[in-house]
Amino acid sequence: MDIRDQHFNLGEWNNIIESSLSDPDSEPLVNIVGDEDALYDAIYVGGGAGGRFGSAYMKAMGGRPLIIDAWPFLGGSCPHQACVPHHLFSEAAEELDRMRWFSDELFFPKFDQSRASILEMVKLFLAGRGSAHAFMNWQTKEQLDVEYILNARATIIDKTTVQAAGRTFKAKNLVLGMGARPINPEIPGLDLRGVHDFVSLVETLDYEPTKCVIIGGSKVAMEYGSFFQATGCDTTIVSRSPLMRTKSLHHVDEDLRQYVVGGMRKRGMEILEGAHPISVNDDGSGRVQTVTVRLATGEEVELDTDFVFVACGELPNTTQAREVLDIDLSETGRVIVNKRMQTNVPGVYAIGDMIDGPMEMFKARKSGVTAARNIMGEDLEFDYSEFPDFLHTTYEVTWVGLTEAEARDEYGSENVIIIQMPPYVEGLDTPNLPLPCAEGTMLYAFSKPELSGYQKLVINGETRKVVGAHHVGYGAKDAFQYLDYLIHRPDGLTIDELGWMNELFLNPEHFVQLSRLRAGNAKLRHL
Amino acid sequence: MDIRDQHFNLGEWNNIIESSLSDPDSEPLVNIVGDEDALYDAIYVGGGAGGRFGSAYMKAMGGRPLIIDAWPFLGGSCPHQACVPHHLFSEAAEELDRMRWFSDELFFPKFDQSRASILEMVKLFLAGRGSAHAFMNWQTKEQLDVEYILNARATIIDKTTVQAAGRTFKAKNLVLGMGARPINPEIPGLDLRGVHDFVSLVETLDYEPTKCVIIGGSKVAMEYGSFFQATGCDTTIVSRSPLMRTKSLHHVDEDLRQYVVGGMRKRGMEILEGAHPISVNDDGSGRVQTVTVRLATGEEVELDTDFVFVACGELPNTTQAREVLDIDLSETGRVIVNKRMQTNVPGVYAIGDMIDGPMEMFKARKSGVTAARNIMGEDLEFDYSEFPDFLHTTYEVTWVGLTEAEARDEYGSENVIIIQMPPYVEGLDTPNLPLPCAEGTMLYAFSKPELSGYQKLVINGETRKVVGAHHVGYGAKDAFQYLDYLIHRPDGLTIDELGWMNELFLNPEHFVQLSRLRAGNAKLRHL
Repeated sequence: MDIRDQHFNLGEWNNIIESSLSDPDSEPLVNIVGDEDALYDAIYVGGGAGGRFGSAYMKAMGGRPLIIDAWPFLGGSCPHQACVPHHLFSEAAEELDRMRWFSDELFFPKFDQSRASILEMVKLFLAGRGSAHAFMNWQTKEQLDVEYILNARATIIDKTTVQAAGRTFKAKNLVLGMGARPINPEIPGLDLRGVHDFVSLVETLDYEPTKCVIIGGSKVAMEYGSFFQATGCDTTIVSRSPLMRTKSLHHVDEDLRQYVVGGMRKRGMEILEGAHPISVNDDGSGRVQTVTVRLATGEEVELDTDFVFVACGELPNTTQAREVLDIDLSETGRVIVNKRMQTNVPGVYAIGDMIDGPMEMFKARKSGVTAARNIMGEDLEFDYSEFPDFLHTTYEVTWVGLTEAEARDEYGSENVIIIQMPPYVEGLDTPNLPLPCAEGTMLYAFSKPELSGYQKLVINGETRKVVGAHHVGYGAKDAFQYLDYLIHRPDGLTIDELGWMNELFLNPEHFVQLSRLRAGNAKLRHL
Repeated sequence: MDIRDQHFNLGEWNNIIESSLSDPDSEPLVNIVGDEDALYDAIYVGGGAGGRFGSAYMKAMGGRPLIIDAWPFLGGSCPHQACVPHHLFSEAAEELDRMRWFSDELFFPKFDQSRASILEMVKLFLAGRGSAHAFMNWQTKEQLDVEYILNARATIIDKTTVQAAGRTFKAKNLVLGMGARPINPEIPGLDLRGVHDFVSLVETLDYEPTKCVIIGGSKVAMEYGSFFQATGCDTTIVSRSPLMRTKSLHHVDEDLRQYVVGGMRKRGMEILEGAHPISVNDDGSGRVQTVTVRLATGEEVELDTDFVFVACGELPNTTQAREVLDIDLSETGRVIVNKRMQTNVPGVYAIGDMIDGPMEMFKARKSGVTAARNIMGEDLEFDYSEFPDFLHTTYEVTWVGLTEAEARDEYGSENVIIIQMPPYVEGLDTPNLPLPCAEGTMLYAFSKPELSGYQKLVINGETRKVVGAHHVGYGAKDAFQYLDYLIHRPDGLTIDELGWMNELFLNPEHFVQLSRLRAGNAKLRHL
């Protein structure tokens, strides 16, 4: 369907996407405005976050990109199966958690377990996800002026040629952004009914789980597990590594980790660390009944369950890249790129979840933009080895820069200054101290102080520069984008600059005012 | 009581404060470590936010400050009657609001009006406020090493002499930080039972209001009013000026204002703008029964009520400053200071709510520190004419820099670029568009899209600099501290720098990624 002259509103887009998704024979959606035989500056194979942002940037610079995507919508897995449902579920988890703690207290009624449902939240997500799809198709066409072909699988012919929708397109460059899929570890029984990952959870869940075993200790394990537990589905995490000590997470401060993982346990989750899943076992009807696990002690146990959730990371979709283009992959199966997102094949770039680094939105989008800007003649490097990070449990957990231990290694213990809440002091009854008392945890601070969060700032006492920030609570995540920028700029951010900012009290993190309480000291001290 | 050698824990402090508050004959709490006859660098008269932060900074710099406060705790009105209860009540308002909108949907039970109570939230606050007091007394003594006398009214003798607790203290400088009290406008009937302000609300409320009339259109009116309404107490605001168009608020964007005030009306609040309260009327027993109001039309109406809340701003406590020290005051009754916080009397400074500018925490604390640093020989100016600002309704509302209209005036309409959510476009059904879809409004976005917030970035298209940011939602407030710093630093913050930051998706404000979608354009465009 040639849609170049059509200007659908959001409702029309929603209908087109819905019918395309439900009809396997539906037509490609072709939004090609210029001469389709002319050479494109780049074809973005995949219109996820990286493809969409990269092509928008290229178009804005005066280039001509084309996006091709197999789905009938732009935006990729994020709004369809990944980050958006995760955020919806995590918000539900936060809310359910609060309603549980305050059950029959204050204005909260007795918590009604029967209302809390994973399946219902999945249905809420499914009913609404089309809106984001419609918006991105609309915006990319009407506001960003990017050409695209959707609902059409791209076949890469060579490094300048791609076929889709029965046509052949030529480009000076290819940008590979075909995303990733959840990894299935080699454990027998993962094909049973009742075994899900974050994709199949939203696509095929058709019953209400009551007891969950999560295989893997990733962010996804912690995030979805916290949601399942909050709904009342008893959840056990089976993880080889201690949570937040997996190699995919860096800069996790030990005090923060203990608050976070301790908080999950406090909410009734079972967390088996150093444990290995052996098999997922059938109830005789093709449905999961138990999981066999070898504990850290060596003992083998059978965990009863009606729901297994696999959260062992993701693997890029590299078949065409390897087989047609002979692209080099790393040992972990990711496409190897330099800081310009160039692969080993000249003119071929890779972005997003195809490449190494965190499977996060900033990397997806900025890698797409980096490819675009280099293709358009800029010499731009994107280093994603340092970045702010976060995850949800029933809290927002956010961190950037060095942990206390890393800073002590780097600068020497005597030069590391810690400013934190609860305060850095022996002998004070900090678990029952309602501090931090902050926006988002006010109700907790006044009634369940041990739940009111944790925060820590790590400072190099010699240079007075902030080198790390760590937060558990609510409402600080947005700020960490700017803290990341400030502490990583060439001159960094000193405690003096931070302490002279204008706080918006009761700020979720108290770093501005706590810094100010110490900034007067020529020789800094803990707080 | 000489406490210099006592090291109370928090529980002990709590008890001391409680018994001091309840016993009018209780002793002063004297924490003087050095020679009490020696000259202090400064006496901070008042140990609120400004006095506490200022003296901590002075001590850290090697100076010798003394705090004297009439209350038996440090921290002033904020944790006792003002910002802390406001934040607790606003968090309750947000939560109650969500529970109302989702009544009997998803995991939310049918909303139980009978559980929602102003009085109960006041009691929760009163039961917990002592913890913050105890902590501040403990911290100021044990961590900040500041000398103080509490539970003792200071009598200023002259500009170097203060008496308290039966002793006389001499100092090179005085820093006046005696705070402010709510203004009672000249309306008959404000002495009736059932008439409160934010102070008497927490100190003396002893019944459950069912119908509220708020006199005044201040932030406090909007914040407390939103809380009252959320509890089910039908609330009418009687304001001379349109809400958020009062002279004490600057840089309020009109789109933001409409979303916010419209949102209050959508929740059932009656907002009478251009209306003048004439009298508060007795039921015959000394209790309020009605309020007579002259509407903008000139018509007079009687509003039934059992609760009047006065929110007409605050007036500094300047009696001693005027009568003893002959300090100059402004027409509005505030102490006039220069940017070093110096009054007209050499060696006398004023800080916090005593002086002009917003009655906000950053100003209180930084003015105290500014006085300290100047006294200690630094030449430091504090300009609080520009600052980030916020208020709560059932949302967090945050803004910094110029409004769209101000930017158009300043730079010319053709040079102002707007990036916003919902997008800047005609003909799209934006009220029903679930955008912004952001952390904190995910549930709304998926089920009541018109409630999912509003955000706007204002850019000078010529210089590419961000000149204003405006947000309604949750979780962006902490970030605005850093946005304020970034856009006001000498080089400002360009759309290109902002668009190259590492977003933490789904960020409450989408400014990073929205900027990136446009930053590729040599000539910027709206989005």
